[in-house]
Formats: sequence, structure tokens, C-alpha cells
Amino acid sequence: MGGELEVERWALSVERWSLNQPLNIRLAAPSDHDAIWSIFHGVVATGDTYAIDPNISRDDAFAYWFAPNSHTYVASVGGDILGTYALSPNRAGGGAHVSNASFMVAPAAHGRGIGRAMAEHCLSEARRLGFTAMQFNFVVSTNEHALRLWKNLGFQIVGTLPGAFRHPGKGLVDVYVMFRTL
Amino acid sequence: MGGELEVERWALSVERWSLNQPLNIRLAAPSDHDAIWSIFHGVVATGDTYAIDPNISRDDAFAYWFAPNSHTYVASVGGDILGTYALSPNRAGGGAHVSNASFMVAPAAHGRGIGRAMAEHCLSEARRLGFTAMQFNFVVSTNEHALRLWKNLGFQIVGTLPGAFRHPGKGLVDVYVMFRTL
Repeated sequence: MGGELEVERWALSVERWSLNQPLNIRLAAPSDHDAIWSIFHGVVATGDTYAIDPNISRDDAFAYWFAPNSHTYVASVGGDILGTYALSPNRAGGGAHVSNASFMVAPAAHGRGIGRAMAEHCLSEARRLGFTAMQFNFVVSTNEHALRLWKNLGFQIVGTLPGAFRHPGKGLVDVYVMFRTL
Repeated sequence: MGGELEVERWALSVERWSLNQPLNIRLAAPSDHDAIWSIFHGVVATGDTYAIDPNISRDDAFAYWFAPNSHTYVASVGGDILGTYALSPNRAGGGAHVSNASFMVAPAAHGRGIGRAMAEHCLSEARRLGFTAMQFNFVVSTNEHALRLWKNLGFQIVGTLPGAFRHPGKGLVDVYVMFRTL
């Protein structure tokens, strides 16, 4: 399948990256789209962290990741896109002061601080854009890495959705709603 | 403005309704669209219950109320559409077993049990469609009528979003996430 080949190619380029090179985070450009799709496809394919159909089409993925009121960023090292995040209002109307954000790191680049760097960039961008809080609607309770990171960045669990996620290996697991003011 | 005239006309037709006539709930048809827009416009115009831009266009309202994976219903009495609701998966992928629903009753028809009748119909439809739970993502804490109804129908508050809604008269107020199994 084309997507898998792309992800493999991506993994190879990601392995070339060393921590000595600076991480650059900026708004996504059309030339980043292939890299974003590789990351998106690789992240949702496992089906264990995002409530997104693992077989989502590229068009549907882009409609989600580049929604009309989203700001979409990429994190790159030496020209290789290793992560991407999307920042948007969580709700419209009277809920538009609360932001929402989603983060994806290329599977082969996990554990190198890219998620944290993007999250810190995102909190700063959210403040700059005038949001006064940030909410994560769907943090799967088994995603310990994300949970630890969000708590470390000041987010609190404000809600627990019982059995709201069907984990491919663990069955129905709880989901957290997390929130922090900015 | 056209919308306001439509709502006025609607209010007049709603006042003709008496409780002696049976309430009919069914899937929405294209011929219901004007009535649905009148209700939608009337409900969001107050800006105190839904996190939707009170000035939302008809096209955007329909994109929201008739999303691709939504089932949209109307409640009518003697040919007059008095309420509408939309039922959909709350999330895709591993979250698709949890449903979400939104309800709107024509402002002039409040207090006549239409919301409760639609909610009971909705719970039944959600079970029929195979959902195993229902979640409301954004119940404004000052919306006492809705809160009472949802609690009465077995929903529990599973999350509190602090100050997540800017109420037009009361400023920032909390929002509840409510949940029940089916």
C-alpha cells in the first residue's frame, strides 16, 4: 500500500535526525502535505490513541487537520517534518475562548521531545491568538505518555468518560477530558 | 431580517398547537428544512445554551445539523414542526460506539414536553442503531431545564469544564459533560 511505503521512507529519513540539530516549528505550507499525511497515517493506523478511523482517506484527514478555523503547524529538523499539530477554537459562539489542540509525532521520532516542544509552542500560540484556556476532549487513559506530558504541562483531568474508547488490544477503556487555563 | 420574520410566523403557528394533538417524531425530510432553520435560528439567537455563533448562516447550520454521519429527526404536531434533534457518533474509530445528540425545541413551544419526548425517542433510536452509550459534550450549567431533564433521563455529570461558556448575561459559566450507557 502506498501509505505504508511512504511511512517506511519517512522512518528512514527520521532516523537520520540527531538531537544536535535545532527543531523548527512553523505554520504548515502546502509543500508539507505529503509529510503530514505520512505522519497522520502512521499515527492513526495503530488505532490506540486517536478516535479516528485507521483507514481514513487522505482527503478526510486533511479536512480534519486543516479545518477552516484551525491553525496547523509542523515541527521539522534539518528539513525533515517530524511532527504536526492543529490548534483551533474548541467550540464556536460562547465557547470560542477555549482552544483545542491535537498533536502527532512521526512514530519513528517518538521519545525525542518533539511532542513537548510542539505543546509548549502551541500554548504560546494559543495565548497569542487570544484564547484563555485549552481543552483536550479525548485523551485515552492508556496513552500514558500523553497523560504524563499533559499533566506536566499543567493540564488537569476535569472529566472521565467511562469506556468511551475501544482500544484495539485492551477493549473498552476510559477517556479523560483535560483542561488548563492560559 | 428574513430570519426574524420567519421565527415570528413560526411562533404564531406554534401557538395554535394544543397538547391534545399527538406528537409525531420521524426522520427529517427536505420539506422540513424551512421549519428546522426557523427553530435552529430561534434557539441559537439567544446565545445562552448552545456554543454556536448566533449569526450562523443557514448553510453552516445545515452542515452542522445534517453532518454526513448524523441522523436528523423532527417532532411535529398537526403538521407543525416544533422540535428537531440530531443523533450521531460522538467520535469516529475507537470512539464510535458512543453516540452524541443535540436537541432544539421551537422557543414558543417550550415547556410542553417536546424535549423529553424527543430525548426518549433519541435514546431508543441510539440503541436501535447499535450505540452503547450517549454523551453530551457541552451542557451549559445555567441551562437548568436541560440539566434537570438529562439527569431525569439517567445522564450523569462526568466532567466539569470551568468557565468554558461565555453566557451573554452571566459571563463565564461552567459547562458539564454528561454521559449514560444505553
